Amino acid sequence: MAPLKLGMVGGGQGAFIGGVHRMAARLDGCFDLVAGAFSSDPARAHASAAELGVAASRSYADFKDMAKAEAARPDGIDAVSIVTPNHLHGPIAEAFLAQDISVICDKPMTATLAQATSLLAVAQVSKGHFFLTHNYTGYPMIRQARQMVVEGALGEIRIVEANYLQDWLSVSPAEDNKQAKWRTDPAQSGGGAIGDIGTHAHNLACFVLGQRATSLSATLTSHVTGRLVDDDARISVQFAGGAQGHIWASQVAIGNENNLTLAVYGTKGSLRWAQENPNILWFTQLGHAPQMITRGGTAASSAASAVTRIPAGHPEGYLEAFATLYREAAAVISSQGKLGGTIGIQDALDGVLFVDACQRSSQGGASWIDLRPSI
Amino acid sequence: MAPLKLGMVGGGQGAFIGGVHRMAARLDGCFDLVAGAFSSDPARAHASAAELGVAASRSYADFKDMAKAEAARPDGIDAVSIVTPNHLHGPIAEAFLAQDISVICDKPMTATLAQATSLLAVAQVSKGHFFLTHNYTGYPMIRQARQMVVEGALGEIRIVEANYLQDWLSVSPAEDNKQAKWRTDPAQSGGGAIGDIGTHAHNLACFVLGQRATSLSATLTSHVTGRLVDDDARISVQFAGGAQGHIWASQVAIGNENNLTLAVYGTKGSLRWAQENPNILWFTQLGHAPQMITRGGTAASSAASAVTRIPAGHPEGYLEAFATLYREAAAVISSQGKLGGTIGIQDALDGVLFVDACQRSSQGGASWIDLRPSI
Amino acid sequence: MAPLKLGMVGGGQGAFIGGVHRMAARLDGCFDLVAGAFSSDPARAHASAAELGVAASRSYADFKDMAKAEAARPDGIDAVSIVTPNHLHGPIAEAFLAQDISVICDKPMTATLAQATSLLAVAQVSKGHFFLTHNYTGYPMIRQARQMVVEGALGEIRIVEANYLQDWLSVSPAEDNKQAKWRTDPAQSGGGAIGDIGTHAHNLACFVLGQRATSLSATLTSHVTGRLVDDDARISVQFAGGAQGHIWASQVAIGNENNLTLAVYGTKGSLRWAQENPNILWFTQLGHAPQMITRGGTAASSAASAVTRIPAGHPEGYLEAFATLYREAAAVISSQGKLGGTIGIQDALDGVLFVDACQRSSQGGASWIDLRPSI
Amino acid sequence: MAPLKLGMVGGGQGAFIGGVHRMAARLDGCFDLVAGAFSSDPARAHASAAELGVAASRSYADFKDMAKAEAARPDGIDAVSIVTPNHLHGPIAEAFLAQDISVICDKPMTATLAQATSLLAVAQVSKGHFFLTHNYTGYPMIRQARQMVVEGALGEIRIVEANYLQDWLSVSPAEDNKQAKWRTDPAQSGGGAIGDIGTHAHNLACFVLGQRATSLSATLTSHVTGRLVDDDARISVQFAGGAQGHIWASQVAIGNENNLTLAVYGTKGSLRWAQENPNILWFTQLGHAPQMITRGGTAASSAASAVTRIPAGHPEGYLEAFATLYREAAAVISSQGKLGGTIGIQDALDGVLFVDACQRSSQGGASWIDLRPSI
Repeated sequence: MAPLKLGMVGGGQGAFIGGVHRMAARLDGCFDLVAGAFSSDPARAHASAAELGVAASRSYADFKDMAKAEAARPDGIDAVSIVTPNHLHGPIAEAFLAQDISVICDKPMTATLAQATSLLAVAQVSKGHFFLTHNYTGYPMIRQARQMVVEGALGEIRIVEANYLQDWLSVSPAEDNKQAKWRTDPAQSGGGAIGDIGTHAHNLACFVLGQRATSLSATLTSHVTGRLVDDDARISVQFAGGAQGHIWASQVAIGNENNLTLAVYGTKGSLRWAQENPNILWFTQLGHAPQMITRGGTAASSAASAVTRIPAGHPEGYLEAFATLYREAAAVISSQGKLGGTIGIQDALDGVLFVDACQRSSQGGASWIDLRPSI
Repeated sequence: MAPLKLGMVGGGQGAFIGGVHRMAARLDGCFDLVAGAFSSDPARAHASAAELGVAASRSYADFKDMAKAEAARPDGIDAVSIVTPNHLHGPIAEAFLAQDISVICDKPMTATLAQATSLLAVAQVSKGHFFLTHNYTGYPMIRQARQMVVEGALGEIRIVEANYLQDWLSVSPAEDNKQAKWRTDPAQSGGGAIGDIGTHAHNLACFVLGQRATSLSATLTSHVTGRLVDDDARISVQFAGGAQGHIWASQVAIGNENNLTLAVYGTKGSLRWAQENPNILWFTQLGHAPQMITRGGTAASSAASAVTRIPAGHPEGYLEAFATLYREAAAVISSQGKLGGTIGIQDALDGVLFVDACQRSSQGGASWIDLRPSI
Repeated sequence: MAPLKLGMVGGGQGAFIGGVHRMAARLDGCFDLVAGAFSSDPARAHASAAELGVAASRSYADFKDMAKAEAARPDGIDAVSIVTPNHLHGPIAEAFLAQDISVICDKPMTATLAQATSLLAVAQVSKGHFFLTHNYTGYPMIRQARQMVVEGALGEIRIVEANYLQDWLSVSPAEDNKQAKWRTDPAQSGGGAIGDIGTHAHNLACFVLGQRATSLSATLTSHVTGRLVDDDARISVQFAGGAQGHIWASQVAIGNENNLTLAVYGTKGSLRWAQENPNILWFTQLGHAPQMITRGGTAASSAASAVTRIPAGHPEGYLEAFATLYREAAAVISSQGKLGGTIGIQDALDGVLFVDACQRSSQGGASWIDLRPSI
Repeated sequence: MAPLKLGMVGGGQGAFIGGVHRMAARLDGCFDLVAGAFSSDPARAHASAAELGVAASRSYADFKDMAKAEAARPDGIDAVSIVTPNHLHGPIAEAFLAQDISVICDKPMTATLAQATSLLAVAQVSKGHFFLTHNYTGYPMIRQARQMVVEGALGEIRIVEANYLQDWLSVSPAEDNKQAKWRTDPAQSGGGAIGDIGTHAHNLACFVLGQRATSLSATLTSHVTGRLVDDDARISVQFAGGAQGHIWASQVAIGNENNLTLAVYGTKGSLRWAQENPNILWFTQLGHAPQMITRGGTAASSAASAVTRIPAGHPEGYLEAFATLYREAAAVISSQGKLGGTIGIQDALDGVLFVDACQRSSQGGASWIDLRPSI
């Protein structure tokens, strides 16, 4: 099929995640980047557009102008990627969805629950789709884990453990560290470790279990003196099916680069996975030796194979997993696919509810908070 | 120096930990086993004695008789190892301490806090020493971790994570599994996973930090239907120095055999260690590549070297670590050493206080419980 | 810069490596695929072109027609990727180089030494460049290894060990396994494990050492009954600088998927690397603890950083390493770069000389064969 | 059963392997050390005896006196451990075997083939047994590997790979390094890496295969300037059953402490094992996910269980494997066992033949040498 036309908001010079989205969009040839509002600074926006091969006529200084102009073009964009700081996700997504342009949004959905509620209302009447890039769900071994859990290979699930450890915020960031600055500014991020990485861990646990959490108790901590957001979060989660979940997200755990791990323990077996070596899934059946299942290998499942590009032993990484979300979004937008592995608006909202509940729980001394059903 | 004379209570045919203590006592040649009350069943006791090369004249059917008889002999035992189910530790230890015979007791100190208080009173007036075999403290890399933490290599400690995962109680044990049976009987064990393995994790965290915990919040769970004790325990701990501790002990985590791990995160660096591959200690300084420190290797510290028997790359294991405690106990009893790495009566009491506080906290909905200063 | 225009020969429906080249060409946006002769079967060629979004007018049934037609177009391709079975590499490359179109060729350069000699002559008078995709040289940690070796971090090199183990040819392949069939047909492949993977190991050792091998002794074995090519190869190599090299390539080593490993031992230190977990490089200095250097991490070198796309802990894989070669080729073709990490015609020829020497050595009872200086 | 009475020759103050033998002899309570000629220096010999609790009356300055005196005593030793430098093994073993006292000898059997031939003749007419402590054969997972190979779990064996890498001789040893000095003196050691560690690798491969090697080709190298013995050895071995063996022994491989690894590849499956983490055995069946078999775990075999002391996840190490050989020797000497896993005189001789053949092959340019059937 012909590539879809993609726009982007954010992701200009000096940004990190914008480049990731562009590579992910490009890898499988499903999207061509043809328009963008790459920066709120017009000069930087246009310079970025030129660098990225986007025509000057489709380089915008303002995302609202872009939404309107692209909607008006006969060859307007099919979808827009939003890769700005968190507090802008909501307004931008609304602007494009209001024009029936699909949105592929970096997580979290929004910085606040109010923004999320507003966005949900807009999304529900748009002809565009809303996708949230919880990219870790794109790993083949995560797809296999989900399939095995849902198909009962582990029996009844007792315990889910999702830890996401980093160390890059172990000290106060340097003044010129743009990434660190907005992430530790509550007004721009909406939260610290809990929003930046805790949501990934929460989403991953829910995704693999195929269940929503019903309540939680959280303790958010700021270890670095003077920091205005949490840099370490511990959350206990209860799932509808009876499983206990435990999430630990930390950005001060020295020696951890991007150490997201998942373990699922059931009555009959367990699974263990680590993002830094993502092509392996450990499976142990009670009473048997642990097995090392590999992406592309002889024990890979249909769900894993569906998102595998190259043979076993040829490692796929972070960008490939990310690209899978783009490929799946393209299929949905082209009406050739169904949501499948992708994260839609309800899951996105769950993430915002999660952060909000964690913050309230922690303020209340780790009190248990009900997670209301998605709005 | 000539070997000390050792007695043993418990550890007859069919027992597990008794054999471990005997091998540990023997490895460094510090003890000769010369007396025992190996079972409460006289026939089994005497058969065990014969098997173990203990003279019939010093095989006893009752530990009280043994304590008195050995105290009366000119060549009586210097120390007794107690390797019975938990609820007997207290009475037996008291009987020998009352005769000024030193006690080397398997953990926990006692099954109840009342027993511990009683034993403490006896110990305080005895000329004998009391040692608790928290054997994981005998690993050279744990000694190094403690030394590095205390000397400040990690800066100020922020987080301590001690997880102890097993899977052997994932289902109800078979009727003939003697080990499982007494451990899941609250009257004999005093607790489930929290007492059996949670205490090891707690002790290890305190040992490496060189600090006592001041308060805790615990959630104990029984995942297996019909089980009368907990089989999974989550505990948050506060240390006097400001560090947060987190302990997870589980006996239903399929795929884990005896997976005790420790991680310590400070402001300047971190340490990570895993019992199943105990000759390695991971050390990361902020801003530097992780280093793999090995037992006996070039980066081993003086505290590690002091308890290392053989060169780097020749793995030492569980029995060697256990034997180190016996060697250190022998040195103390012979008045040639000081407590050093060994766990004495105050640390032992801390373990019982810990279990008691966890049980009360869990019953109170994970309420925070002050750990009173040792009595 | 604007993307270059890329053609492809081979890589139609059912092929493996063609898809890899396309993803690699696309990832960094340096190439647009605009023409192809995707199969020697015209129907399959055109169907593949349609699937890949290549205009029918630029879908060719014959590579010679393609070379001429594209050279004649004002918007003709800048480069062609050759992804056919080995015995066709030479003729195809010559056809395009004769038209001054650059060639990006899957390894090996050719199936025979005679073909290589012929191609070299054509390349030397062409304005086009010739690149061989020894893709493992694109890994950031391999770039760092090369930099560290060349800069002397290991001292004088004593030993290089390059092993490449697979198991997918442990039994005779099924009739319908297209990949296995041509690779085990000497007329199409020019060799078995030695050509398919041994050349990668040889190239990697030379690349990291920054040296050519001067002589070798090889033993090629066919373990599977009836196989006409080797499936296991052991080679000892002597380097000019005095280092010993050892290469083991096997396609019958059950339990190995694509297990390419490299170890370099010098007088002052060593490096170890494994392709299946490629973001890590182990570095040990004599007398110090081993260090785990990570791609993107604090100990990454300038050469590694130059080919790193995303932060530490976000794994890059096989496709990213492959894409680096395409990006570097694009820079050379655009005259904005120099060969740098890419493998040019002399290194390509070395690979064919290596296979030829291995086959002669093995036939001569592992006799030592001089590797003549590149022609 | 009552402990046997053990003597020791060598192993006085400052020695390494003597202490290992004593711990190994003691661990299972099968031997009491009651006599010794601990040093050729009488003062050191007697001081060592006193330290080790050996009566002055049974501390000897000369091994010949010891053999005679102990043979004459009614309570004389049942066996003697020989833990001297290699060139003394032969004469000492002969002295004790001549008195019908069993010998437990550190490897290799002797420093020269002539000594071995002489010793064999003495052993064949002695009532004493001769055991060689190839201690790595005592690891439970090695016993399991042997059982699985012999029982056909891997099919027909194609390839055996045994590598033994160390780095402690990467530079010329300091003058006061007693261990390094005698090992690098050909007169005392009989060889370098080939004899010190290559023999272990050779023995391990033969032990697990249950086969003798029939021919070999070897290249011995001295990397360190001025060294009189090899410090790196590469050997290709042919087995009677058709398998190829490859051995690499190096003492200059920086970053390796005592890295002995074994891999066995058959037509149906493979096994992999590493001494530094010896409680794990990797088993892959063709077409299935690799399995991690653990000592004491659910997939442990009868041969592994027979030499396992403690439960899964409680690591056993080097000393435990060594102690298994002592326990098995005790059983043979007491006539309650059969050779089983222990290495007797024929295997011991094979080791000397191996070293001799390697040295001759290397001098002959890696020529193939027939290994004559044991004498």
